[in-house]
Amino acid sequence: MTTVKDILNWVQTLAPAYMKESWDNVGLLCGDPGKSVTRVLVALDPFEHVCREAERVGAELIMTHHPLIFQPAKSITTETSVGRSILRLCGSGISAINAHTNLDCAPGGVNDVLAQTLGLANVSVIRPNGTDEAGNPWGLLRMGECEATLEVFLERVKTNLRASGLRYVRGCDNVRKVAVGGGSCGGGLMEAYDAGCDTFVTADVKYNQFWDAKELGMNLIDAGHFATENPVVPVLARKLGEAFPEIEVLISRDHGDCLAHY
Amino acid sequence: MTTVKDILNWVQTLAPAYMKESWDNVGLLCGDPGKSVTRVLVALDPFEHVCREAERVGAELIMTHHPLIFQPAKSITTETSVGRSILRLCGSGISAINAHTNLDCAPGGVNDVLAQTLGLANVSVIRPNGTDEAGNPWGLLRMGECEATLEVFLERVKTNLRASGLRYVRGCDNVRKVAVGGGSCGGGLMEAYDAGCDTFVTADVKYNQFWDAKELGMNLIDAGHFATENPVVPVLARKLGEAFPEIEVLISRDHGDCLAHY
Amino acid sequence: MTTVKDILNWVQTLAPAYMKESWDNVGLLCGDPGKSVTRVLVALDPFEHVCREAERVGAELIMTHHPLIFQPAKSITTETSVGRSILRLCGSGISAINAHTNLDCAPGGVNDVLAQTLGLANVSVIRPNGTDEAGNPWGLLRMGECEATLEVFLERVKTNLRASGLRYVRGCDNVRKVAVGGGSCGGGLMEAYDAGCDTFVTADVKYNQFWDAKELGMNLIDAGHFATENPVVPVLARKLGEAFPEIEVLISRDHGDCLAHY
Amino acid sequence: MTTVKDILNWVQTLAPAYMKESWDNVGLLCGDPGKSVTRVLVALDPFEHVCREAERVGAELIMTHHPLIFQPAKSITTETSVGRSILRLCGSGISAINAHTNLDCAPGGVNDVLAQTLGLANVSVIRPNGTDEAGNPWGLLRMGECEATLEVFLERVKTNLRASGLRYVRGCDNVRKVAVGGGSCGGGLMEAYDAGCDTFVTADVKYNQFWDAKELGMNLIDAGHFATENPVVPVLARKLGEAFPEIEVLISRDHGDCLAHY
Amino acid sequence: MTTVKDILNWVQTLAPAYMKESWDNVGLLCGDPGKSVTRVLVALDPFEHVCREAERVGAELIMTHHPLIFQPAKSITTETSVGRSILRLCGSGISAINAHTNLDCAPGGVNDVLAQTLGLANVSVIRPNGTDEAGNPWGLLRMGECEATLEVFLERVKTNLRASGLRYVRGCDNVRKVAVGGGSCGGGLMEAYDAGCDTFVTADVKYNQFWDAKELGMNLIDAGHFATENPVVPVLARKLGEAFPEIEVLISRDHGDCLAHY
Amino acid sequence: MTTVKDILNWVQTLAPAYMKESWDNVGLLCGDPGKSVTRVLVALDPFEHVCREAERVGAELIMTHHPLIFQPAKSITTETSVGRSILRLCGSGISAINAHTNLDCAPGGVNDVLAQTLGLANVSVIRPNGTDEAGNPWGLLRMGECEATLEVFLERVKTNLRASGLRYVRGCDNVRKVAVGGGSCGGGLMEAYDAGCDTFVTADVKYNQFWDAKELGMNLIDAGHFATENPVVPVLARKLGEAFPEIEVLISRDHGDCLAHY
Repeated sequence: MTTVKDILNWVQTLAPAYMKESWDNVGLLCGDPGKSVTRVLVALDPFEHVCREAERVGAELIMTHHPLIFQPAKSITTETSVGRSILRLCGSGISAINAHTNLDCAPGGVNDVLAQTLGLANVSVIRPNGTDEAGNPWGLLRMGECEATLEVFLERVKTNLRASGLRYVRGCDNVRKVAVGGGSCGGGLMEAYDAGCDTFVTADVKYNQFWDAKELGMNLIDAGHFATENPVVPVLARKLGEAFPEIEVLISRDHGDCLAHY
Repeated sequence: MTTVKDILNWVQTLAPAYMKESWDNVGLLCGDPGKSVTRVLVALDPFEHVCREAERVGAELIMTHHPLIFQPAKSITTETSVGRSILRLCGSGISAINAHTNLDCAPGGVNDVLAQTLGLANVSVIRPNGTDEAGNPWGLLRMGECEATLEVFLERVKTNLRASGLRYVRGCDNVRKVAVGGGSCGGGLMEAYDAGCDTFVTADVKYNQFWDAKELGMNLIDAGHFATENPVVPVLARKLGEAFPEIEVLISRDHGDCLAHY
Repeated sequence: MTTVKDILNWVQTLAPAYMKESWDNVGLLCGDPGKSVTRVLVALDPFEHVCREAERVGAELIMTHHPLIFQPAKSITTETSVGRSILRLCGSGISAINAHTNLDCAPGGVNDVLAQTLGLANVSVIRPNGTDEAGNPWGLLRMGECEATLEVFLERVKTNLRASGLRYVRGCDNVRKVAVGGGSCGGGLMEAYDAGCDTFVTADVKYNQFWDAKELGMNLIDAGHFATENPVVPVLARKLGEAFPEIEVLISRDHGDCLAHY
Repeated sequence: MTTVKDILNWVQTLAPAYMKESWDNVGLLCGDPGKSVTRVLVALDPFEHVCREAERVGAELIMTHHPLIFQPAKSITTETSVGRSILRLCGSGISAINAHTNLDCAPGGVNDVLAQTLGLANVSVIRPNGTDEAGNPWGLLRMGECEATLEVFLERVKTNLRASGLRYVRGCDNVRKVAVGGGSCGGGLMEAYDAGCDTFVTADVKYNQFWDAKELGMNLIDAGHFATENPVVPVLARKLGEAFPEIEVLISRDHGDCLAHY
Repeated sequence: MTTVKDILNWVQTLAPAYMKESWDNVGLLCGDPGKSVTRVLVALDPFEHVCREAERVGAELIMTHHPLIFQPAKSITTETSVGRSILRLCGSGISAINAHTNLDCAPGGVNDVLAQTLGLANVSVIRPNGTDEAGNPWGLLRMGECEATLEVFLERVKTNLRASGLRYVRGCDNVRKVAVGGGSCGGGLMEAYDAGCDTFVTADVKYNQFWDAKELGMNLIDAGHFATENPVVPVLARKLGEAFPEIEVLISRDHGDCLAHY
Repeated sequence: MTTVKDILNWVQTLAPAYMKESWDNVGLLCGDPGKSVTRVLVALDPFEHVCREAERVGAELIMTHHPLIFQPAKSITTETSVGRSILRLCGSGISAINAHTNLDCAPGGVNDVLAQTLGLANVSVIRPNGTDEAGNPWGLLRMGECEATLEVFLERVKTNLRASGLRYVRGCDNVRKVAVGGGSCGGGLMEAYDAGCDTFVTADVKYNQFWDAKELGMNLIDAGHFATENPVVPVLARKLGEAFPEIEVLISRDHGDCLAHY
């Protein structure tokens, strides 16, 4: 019998909790570690429609990147989105596990998958925070090599990430060294610049960050939060299935990007 | 149809939220305000055995004094007492409402009931914080008159509150003006003294507070947290039943004081 | 002779300093209030290329929306963007005035111009902070009426704001009541919702804000920071020219949006 | 000639200041280190009646567990209990030394004496903070073995500590591994539980701590602050007498527990 | 019989506690309010030599400007200056009352006496904080008129205050409107400037404050802390004697300025 | 060609930034590190008249002890002294470098020069913070030996520092071991005392510090902020000239002490 706790322990090997940011909330955020698990639903977010899908497909566990509870909860009611998710999960006895900034930083995690999805070569960690048990460096951002004009690279980003659109600032014409950070990593611009990158792919970029990039002569591409992080979902599902062949691992069909471009 | 929201609104008239302490957490802490309610379980605390009792008796709502969530929750799991209570409530679709320091302070609330249970005469609010809509003063502590030796008064406190025992310091022999504060109100000793009281009944009293009372020549009686607050439970249940004759109101049978004296 | 001080006083009538946020920095941020002014360059931002343009066109003053100094400066060197701007302005004796969140909030300011540019009818302030000397309500967000499908409205936003592209989440199909907030106003989503709006146009929207809108059934449109705020620039220039007919008012030609969409 | 300073130095070997909590106040809190000492009065607390006793018996020094000054003093007047004690000590030229949390933690200190008084076997420090010069581990709580039913153990606690009564919660029927912490150590419950204890003896226990113990299945016994700490007083007096045979060491006769049970 | 309490009440009419700064410590800082007083020693500071003088002259009370305890005391020992003063006062049963920033601000207090001692005309409060019961404005600084060259004024300051020397910066040649603030009031320079003063007399002036004055074209004169505040001492002594004709009021003979100039 | 950056790097060897206090601001505070330098003006302070002198003498750089910007600047206008200095420097393309608390602490810095100017023998660092690359101890205060009466020493201090006057308290008659700290180092009194010094020369001394010295029996001499720190200026100028023989180093003629004594 595979329990929630077994899967939690496995996540700890994949994305150890010590790799998370101090403000983050990861691990088992809802449920009973002793419960048996036969089916897991994997998704980027634990939103209510994902919880509903988990009920429908008969999953005993959802595994997500973003945490079910971010701001510690003073109440659990139908009046908030988080409350509705928790009420539904508890009502159906479904547990929730997540790996957030620890999975961003882990070798083979969100940002390694992002770099790989973009076809970068010779990928390495920018400013590693340390090395894991296997001796691999870990940290937030990745960088890798490429050989393309900006136009070609934009097309590749859009296609490979299945992004509905890109926002970008042109800093130079050729793309040779690319930094990547899935989700809101715009604050890492100087770090990418100092590492010698000419291009940075991330999401949720702010006005002043676009201008900073322009002044630095860097290409800064906002490909969307979902689009830059979701590639890790199938990878996570596959690894989970390999680690626990006896359980059924499903990828959410109901969850997709809410963002459109016009 | 009576909803959780209807009962919540009624609680607001009984113990308005503006009477609560700034650090407190009151109101609907779990559930769906739109749900129909036919049976309510009233208890001092929303502990797991109370939640289990609510399931057993078929209540759709528990109403308590202490809050289900005090420290905002970062996770809801079976590994903590609060987590177990919430999982059980959500699992059975039971909502939870509470009135804590607002009920301590409200006219007719915890401390008025306590004063009345002790048979005090001419009860008034010590240092009122203001007046409510009906023009009644409200605030934390109450005081009232009495005419007894300390021995007689101790016996009365123990009997009327059904306390398993009392801890006290003798400051004087006669009891004439008594301050009361259910639960941990030992910090209000000087306030009671300044109001001219010779005796103070409260709970969770600390070592230095006992000595302070002795120096002031006051009787300080720790009658227990449960014993000093629980008298409000049947009163709350009765009022609720009167306000909503169509619903069944039950008082918890499983919840009692955990404390024993030797 | 018109001085920097004269223009500063006029700005105070247009967008009084009491309307600014507490963390903001507005007014004369560089230069000498006593200097004579014959030519002013108006632009959204005081970036270095705008300062260079001011030198080239012979302006003695730049007037912008964003502040020259946001984070108080510990040094003024060519190593930072802000430092380069200040060195250039001081080197050429050009002063810098700005009106930021006070101009966002002021009647006739950034957000009124934005609402007007989008062709909204019956525009009003959402949750006014107060009324100005003329008795007009002031505050951050505006709302107004419209009658369009989402597709038609998206086209209008893109065209009227000259936006290079839009990011949006579809919450409903028809646009009837629209909230607007130029720049990073995504945090005002609930305020717009509570005011009964079905659509919100702003910029720098974050991932979770898009999802919140979707859950609320609201259309949330990120039209870009520059595109939503720049419409105020020609209005500001025109008013300045009317107030001081003796000075020449120029709108920056070198400053435009750095953002592109793909 | 023995001076106050000599005794202070000796206390430092018995209960080094580095063992105290950061918020604590220990050592010479009143008087003149250079003064000669021929008679010392030892007591748990430096209350006014103890100071009066010191005057009466002709002591030049009082040595206590609790500090004379806890909250730093803004004034020294007869209007406060601390002020009266200090005025009396200074008026009679009596010095005051104390060892508080350093004596709780020290090998042979408050908690070792408490464990010994309760007849525990194989006593050890729970989670030691370090080792002292002699290589002995030191820290706050102690645990030791026992073999008794709860009823037998309760009787032993009450008798050995001369407690006027006990408050307790029954978590289980047999007492085998007991944690002890004199005074207000209720916050150490989880530490005791994690160390494998089934029973915890301490004082000033709060409502929620009793319930926590019940949920954990632990016996939690509140034997009173004075009763759990006072056993160290005769031990301290004896050691002091052995270290300074030339001075007379008296144990307070006037100081006892103020607490009674009903 | 006159008690310490009677004198404390009188001080409250002279310099009400509500006029003090929030960080200050004033009133009865040592002793017994119920004690009888026949002789009072008045001095600027409660230093140990003043306490010794009080013992010698048989005073039961010292009344000072500066507080006996400023930093709340964690201990009262001979190892600190404050400890020695308190031990001596308590040892001899002498109480200590002070009026500090409340006396600076009060009408007729430190700064009015200073202005008068310098012979200023038409003295008024700079930026009053309010009005007292008698309707007189109160506040920290005073200003008054004068007609002198700087040289003449310097000579007058030195002579009238019996200062051993002055430190000053020359900002202009003529002295017409003078601000005064006894003790460390250098931070009030801009306030004095804004009130139209050309000269400011205070003490404990810092380097940058001298330069600020020079830039403003103001004369800034540091006449010493003792010299600028001590004039209030005989005034306080006289008023006390008039209010309590039955007690003997002595001015300290042992206390003088410790500062010399070379 | 010598650049601002070259000189900045040299300063880093003379007074490394790691020696500065955490609250301090040092290094290049204004200008362009890439600019060529042929003439430097050295002064204690970067006040406006020093900036004007720099313009007049054709310096491209001013090097000072005190920082141009201390409180981070929210604006750069003629309305403040700092603003006027910066506007003038930027207007004339003059850079500004400073070494403040790092130069106080550095071997051969402010306090070593002060000790040497006073003719002290066997000078050492009081409580060194560490050792520099050359193995020399560094830290704030210095102490050295002397053999003089207080009168003789006062004369020497006044003469050697060219002080316009001294303020002092006499603690003893002979001067044998002298601590020195240029500028506002009065807070180091106990440190000097603990190191065995009988005399302390510093500046900006406060009332209570003078009295503390008197109680300790120490001579405390306030020789003025400018007078105690300015001796480092010619030393700094000389070293700079030696390090960069190709540039002209001038010492400010316009900057002197603003303080006078009467």
